[in-house]
Amino acid sequence: MSSKPSIPKGTRDFSTSEMLKREYIFENIKQVFRLYGYQPIETPAMENLTTLLGKYGDEGDKLLFRILNSGDFMSAVTTDEIAKHESTKLSSLICEKGLRYDLTVPFARYVVQHRDEIIFPFKRYQIQPVWRADRPQKGRYREFFQCDVDVIGSDSLLNEYELIRIINDIFERLRISTVIKINNRKVLAGIAAYIGESERIIDITVAIDKIDKIGIANVNSELISKGLSNNAISNLQPFLELTGNTDEKLTRLGTLLSESEVGVKGIEELRTLFNYLENCSLSCAIELDLTLARGLNYYTGAIIEVKSKDVSIGSICGGGRYDNLTGVFGMEGVSGVGISFGADRIYDVLNQLNLFNEIMVSSTEVLVVNFGEKESLYARRILDSLHSLNVRSELYPDPAKLKKQISYADSKKIPFVIMAGEDEINNNHMTIKIMSTGEQKKIPLSELSSFVKKEISSSN
Amino acid sequence: MSSKPSIPKGTRDFSTSEMLKREYIFENIKQVFRLYGYQPIETPAMENLTTLLGKYGDEGDKLLFRILNSGDFMSAVTTDEIAKHESTKLSSLICEKGLRYDLTVPFARYVVQHRDEIIFPFKRYQIQPVWRADRPQKGRYREFFQCDVDVIGSDSLLNEYELIRIINDIFERLRISTVIKINNRKVLAGIAAYIGESERIIDITVAIDKIDKIGIANVNSELISKGLSNNAISNLQPFLELTGNTDEKLTRLGTLLSESEVGVKGIEELRTLFNYLENCSLSCAIELDLTLARGLNYYTGAIIEVKSKDVSIGSICGGGRYDNLTGVFGMEGVSGVGISFGADRIYDVLNQLNLFNEIMVSSTEVLVVNFGEKESLYARRILDSLHSLNVRSELYPDPAKLKKQISYADSKKIPFVIMAGEDEINNNHMTIKIMSTGEQKKIPLSELSSFVKKEISSSN
Repeated sequence: MSSKPSIPKGTRDFSTSEMLKREYIFENIKQVFRLYGYQPIETPAMENLTTLLGKYGDEGDKLLFRILNSGDFMSAVTTDEIAKHESTKLSSLICEKGLRYDLTVPFARYVVQHRDEIIFPFKRYQIQPVWRADRPQKGRYREFFQCDVDVIGSDSLLNEYELIRIINDIFERLRISTVIKINNRKVLAGIAAYIGESERIIDITVAIDKIDKIGIANVNSELISKGLSNNAISNLQPFLELTGNTDEKLTRLGTLLSESEVGVKGIEELRTLFNYLENCSLSCAIELDLTLARGLNYYTGAIIEVKSKDVSIGSICGGGRYDNLTGVFGMEGVSGVGISFGADRIYDVLNQLNLFNEIMVSSTEVLVVNFGEKESLYARRILDSLHSLNVRSELYPDPAKLKKQISYADSKKIPFVIMAGEDEINNNHMTIKIMSTGEQKKIPLSELSSFVKKEISSSN
Repeated sequence: MSSKPSIPKGTRDFSTSEMLKREYIFENIKQVFRLYGYQPIETPAMENLTTLLGKYGDEGDKLLFRILNSGDFMSAVTTDEIAKHESTKLSSLICEKGLRYDLTVPFARYVVQHRDEIIFPFKRYQIQPVWRADRPQKGRYREFFQCDVDVIGSDSLLNEYELIRIINDIFERLRISTVIKINNRKVLAGIAAYIGESERIIDITVAIDKIDKIGIANVNSELISKGLSNNAISNLQPFLELTGNTDEKLTRLGTLLSESEVGVKGIEELRTLFNYLENCSLSCAIELDLTLARGLNYYTGAIIEVKSKDVSIGSICGGGRYDNLTGVFGMEGVSGVGISFGADRIYDVLNQLNLFNEIMVSSTEVLVVNFGEKESLYARRILDSLHSLNVRSELYPDPAKLKKQISYADSKKIPFVIMAGEDEINNNHMTIKIMSTGEQKKIPLSELSSFVKKEISSSN
């Protein structure tokens, strides 16, 4: 085997420097989740296909990675069935398991399966990879991490409020300026009813979702092509042209939708949520956005989407309320609300804005040079002291040329190099080279601890 | 769908309390890895089957989970091939990818694929799940985590020394008393040569590996049944009966193996390693164990295995040196040494010894009671203060009965409950209930910060 080995298309290796950056993101997210009382669960990478199939539409079913049954999988297949040579049919005979496609369906399955052990309201987060047999392209992978946080078993709007606080705190910690856009599915239903096109709610929201990109005129043409009446379209215009601050918009909406029960309920929910949010100081901007319609089939109340102010990359976080997550597994009436953070896009935003710089401190802080067998006992003692002071440090394992060892420190961005040759050892000293300046200091072994406290801990 | 959904056999869901315990283990392991200058990488769950096949023996090939090619996978299969109705043959035509079976082969693949970007010596760790289509049984799963740490590109014995320090530090942090057993493949090769049975080295080591379980007499019978000559067996006895401390054993071994070049080299390696270890203080016991032979086909130098002193559960960590990890992918002469921690067994040991008790502090610390819409603004202010003091805390989302909210705190082992009804609000006070004693204190809002510092932070 002389050609370089490779990995399946659409998958990625993460190098040490990529991993440190990714862990920085996940750590910040987890810390905030925990601060608000959310706790982790994990589910298996493989689920039974009966759990996964039919949950993501026909297109989703096609994108599931299926796992071939172990052993003599063909024994379950008759010659007749084989003769048909049909991939879809055959796959259901020779595969019982598939790889997790998202974290939502496994979470619903988890809640139903463990309903008797779970304490409701159940506040959980889950950070795990998912797999989709999508056509790989820039920014779209066949294996990627999802990072979900949900609370289920409570329909209080304080949950929506809390999730927005969580979004705010996480992006504040990551130093990303964001806009949090909020909408409500009930208001969208009210609008569809108001213009007499309740059945068309999906076509309507898909179209108005594009306003930012294509403009009102094109949205209207699209709606005409979908078969909406001129009357409906003209009734829709006031909603597309809403202006003013949130309060003004909600008042106007209230007037327009006063006859729609669901619309009124939606406006009331938005008012309560914005009222909660007014009474706290957030660094993110909050915006009511009636054109926000993500995952409409799924959400029943609040719809939330987050965008970076400085990098144009689409949504970096989103979610909403769903009233019947677990119904598909036979457990009715469990309302929940959740959001999902897009780790890959957050990574790209941090990279583009150069906000990762200071993270590299989480790698090795001190390299101790290896001058040979005789000197290594002294070097190991220095290393022991550094470790007991909790300084990430390593001894170069081989007595290589000094130049090579220094270049190793340089490549790994290790900020301090400690050298102790015969001269230093005889005097119980060590020489510390500060890599950023090239400066060298000779200090007694006994002063290592105070050097660490002054120079190294402070650089963290 | 009325029956409860389930997960594939041999896989597991991890509940919030299991996750907190698992993260406690992984966090301790990672912190020590980083302290010694190791950094994380991750590889995809799916690897090309060309990467995986032939690396784990015929039995291993059978245990790989294969992923069905996407789309019309049958189009690549001729009618003739199907007619043969052979599962093994067919699987190679309809599957190109498989799930990761361990972390070692993907690591070797990674090193070869990224050789030009890697700085050697390369110190990496990797904590990821692996999948094996093994028959599930108690303690054996089809999905489980491996936790590997390796340094490659250096043959210095300081690496072995460092890994043993890492083992010591990790189990010290986890408060598990352990014995670290050490052997050397070269010494085993020397013994096999000495008794004139070099070709039989595997049979010999497999047999002597059982001494602890079946005794010397049975080991000897087994070796006779394998076809070893009486002469060889009688020459082997001095090695099985070695007594004394490490130094005495090594001296005796040195005499016995003085004619074997490889044996002498092995003894020299053991001497150097034990000499390094003598000069530092370890809490683990270290033992030379000539009967230790794990993964013999694979290791070329040191062999390391760790057992718990207090729980009989087999090895909880193990590893060794391999001289040609990457050879199979066409990159020769890269020596490395590594160990792997068994997270599931470590979990069981900690559980049995009741060493998880104090970990539950990492869940929510304070529940703020929800008395209703009117009171919730005040409650949210208390919550904001707690969050800004970095106290993991939550507001119960619904204005449920007090009893229900207290019982929620109780079930979730939340140690403090804060209540602020009309009376407290009017006086700018709050009542704090300490769940362990049932005691209640009424304190001014302004004293929350000092209460937290005194009572909550100190309980962490």
